[in-house]
Amino acid sequence: MVQTGTAIVYLDYNATAPIRPEALAATTTALRTVGNASSAHGPGQEAAYAVDRARAQVATLLGCAANELIFTSGATEANNLAIRSAAGPGCDLVVSAVEHPAVSEAAAEVAAHAGGTVHTIGVYRDGTLRLDELEEALSARPALVSIMAANNETGVLNDLDLVVKLSHEAGTLVHSDATQLVGRLPIDLRKLQLDALSLSGHKFGAPQGVGGLFVRRDTALAIRPLAYGGGHERGQRPGTLNVPGIVGLGAAADAAACHLDQEMVRVRLLRDRFETAVMTALPGTRRNGHPDLRLPGVSSLTFDGLPADAVLAAMPALAASEGSACSSGALEPSRVLLAMGLTRDEADCTIRFSLGYATTTVDIDDAAHHVIDAARRVRAALYPNTTTTASGLAGGQEGQRRHDA
Amino acid sequence: MVQTGTAIVYLDYNATAPIRPEALAATTTALRTVGNASSAHGPGQEAAYAVDRARAQVATLLGCAANELIFTSGATEANNLAIRSAAGPGCDLVVSAVEHPAVSEAAAEVAAHAGGTVHTIGVYRDGTLRLDELEEALSARPALVSIMAANNETGVLNDLDLVVKLSHEAGTLVHSDATQLVGRLPIDLRKLQLDALSLSGHKFGAPQGVGGLFVRRDTALAIRPLAYGGGHERGQRPGTLNVPGIVGLGAAADAAACHLDQEMVRVRLLRDRFETAVMTALPGTRRNGHPDLRLPGVSSLTFDGLPADAVLAAMPALAASEGSACSSGALEPSRVLLAMGLTRDEADCTIRFSLGYATTTVDIDDAAHHVIDAARRVRAALYPNTTTTASGLAGGQEGQRRHDA
Repeated sequence: MVQTGTAIVYLDYNATAPIRPEALAATTTALRTVGNASSAHGPGQEAAYAVDRARAQVATLLGCAANELIFTSGATEANNLAIRSAAGPGCDLVVSAVEHPAVSEAAAEVAAHAGGTVHTIGVYRDGTLRLDELEEALSARPALVSIMAANNETGVLNDLDLVVKLSHEAGTLVHSDATQLVGRLPIDLRKLQLDALSLSGHKFGAPQGVGGLFVRRDTALAIRPLAYGGGHERGQRPGTLNVPGIVGLGAAADAAACHLDQEMVRVRLLRDRFETAVMTALPGTRRNGHPDLRLPGVSSLTFDGLPADAVLAAMPALAASEGSACSSGALEPSRVLLAMGLTRDEADCTIRFSLGYATTTVDIDDAAHHVIDAARRVRAALYPNTTTTASGLAGGQEGQRRHDA
Repeated sequence: MVQTGTAIVYLDYNATAPIRPEALAATTTALRTVGNASSAHGPGQEAAYAVDRARAQVATLLGCAANELIFTSGATEANNLAIRSAAGPGCDLVVSAVEHPAVSEAAAEVAAHAGGTVHTIGVYRDGTLRLDELEEALSARPALVSIMAANNETGVLNDLDLVVKLSHEAGTLVHSDATQLVGRLPIDLRKLQLDALSLSGHKFGAPQGVGGLFVRRDTALAIRPLAYGGGHERGQRPGTLNVPGIVGLGAAADAAACHLDQEMVRVRLLRDRFETAVMTALPGTRRNGHPDLRLPGVSSLTFDGLPADAVLAAMPALAASEGSACSSGALEPSRVLLAMGLTRDEADCTIRFSLGYATTTVDIDDAAHHVIDAARRVRAALYPNTTTTASGLAGGQEGQRRHDA
């Protein structure tokens, strides 16, 4: 396990992943090397060359051209850049009900400012998109559809090919926040005709503080920068380039591209092993999200009657989370789970476990042990007079059957 | 000298400085440690603690409170954040004629959008601010005055105390882009009553890709974020915090605060040694900017009749630059030097040398050797029939006397 200062099992890759060894090496080398990628002298040109190589590495992972990438400080900036660029006066926007705030809040702000409307597309109980609602929203001729590639809390995947097809037929541009997908599952932007796509480095083993926006060369989406200054990134994103971060992003993309096929299989097996162990030992436990159409490394589990914060507090040696890590409103229930039709109580009893490239079988077995032990202790504390075959659990099992149907 | 892959003398600290050893160590440790500073679990809270410590370290360097700092991806973002926040409908803005594009372009965009006017304050031949023009501009009751602390091309310092006094008397808020000052000269925001100040980490030994905006607690300047998303940085700057960058910024601030007093004296002596050597050997050379009111590490020299690009090309073992490193319009003459009254020809013959904490006497002596040698070779190539006592040099000396007066 990556160093965390303690013997903690880290299952919160959707919050941030440990840095890949290749990215650590590349970033550290770049940190030791002086050079502004805009300088004309030797050190500057070496930095510019390192940035060019990283751009090609990321482009290879995505299946796009290097000059279709704009480096940013992360996916929040990339999402805002795409959404703000799409909006003109009176423009409508379309997002799903389970987007990250960096999309939903950006869309709300931009639409309010432009005098337009945000159409929010609901999801089914399994977290997949209501395409009927998308088709209805498209009839309003919105300027942009922004639908995430994979949900941050449940890992549920959207059929972006179909979203693009429907949207383009309606004359609408499509952006996708692919923060949780890139580096975890293959993507090929030569086939998937998105107009724009956001990515975040630290979700797949690059350093924090770097990400990017893909903008298709022949799209009608004209990027308007969020800030003004030097002409960096062809004027679309001014500011001295974060060379160590970008180089780390390139190295992480390179490593992901090399190992993705085997990693996704291995991670899925580990995730399934974890879910089987936990759900067998804790029969009231329900899994959220479509069982197949989800990221291999994500497990969203609802522990019937057991508040997530209590279970998490009872297992300090395991790092997992209630919903997303974003710092706003930790006291609010998950918007994602409510949109899927969970009750507030169910949402409050849900924990997200997320695995990744460095997770081991030992991690998974330790994690399952911690979860089972913690859940039993919390149950014993909260329900001292019931047994593990109490009626609450039967309700849980029934709920799980409904959900899996 | 810091590793650059070759035996290059690096005198381009104003473009980017080599990372300080303390910052490298802190950043590398953070890179190896997994944790999203917004996560509630142990690794997340360790990351949050590291960010808190870094915030205190930067606050100590600036003489402000930790909760007056917003971390950003750099000074371009910080400048845009301050300037855009200040502007309302019809608001006027005031900037100097020698601001970095991250201020001047941001002000132009914001004013154009708000229907206001940008008042541009000129500078004298020595690069210092025309306070008479500032007073006149203040009579228009602008929303914000944004005047840099130290110029990026000449190092000329502005009297920010006086700028603040005049502006506050006129009821106008004051922001300063202190990118080139922070970490090079002391600053105390308890005394200097700026409403906001931008800083960039990589100019004083932090990694690239991190900076900050100071916003005084009791200022009337209300920050409106450039992007929307999670509630990071109290909603003022959403996006997962760049923990390794921020930790490196804190360590660089700590090191700068410890060593600043001796570094500024040492760097000034080295700079003066460099200027004396070059100007003695090349009598047509003129120094730009106020001889005393400038950063200790900056030397802007005009080589009479010798195009800067030719001189720079003749000394590949020395990294220096024509004006700023920002990637826009390398073919344009320096706006800064033209604003100071240099002709286009003079501006085209000007090189910026910038030193810093890691520059050594050997670096300086090597650099002077390279410059003198390169200038002589370029002169011999361009003016094969003149000697080093040709009439052009007399004009240069006269120019220097005028300038120093």
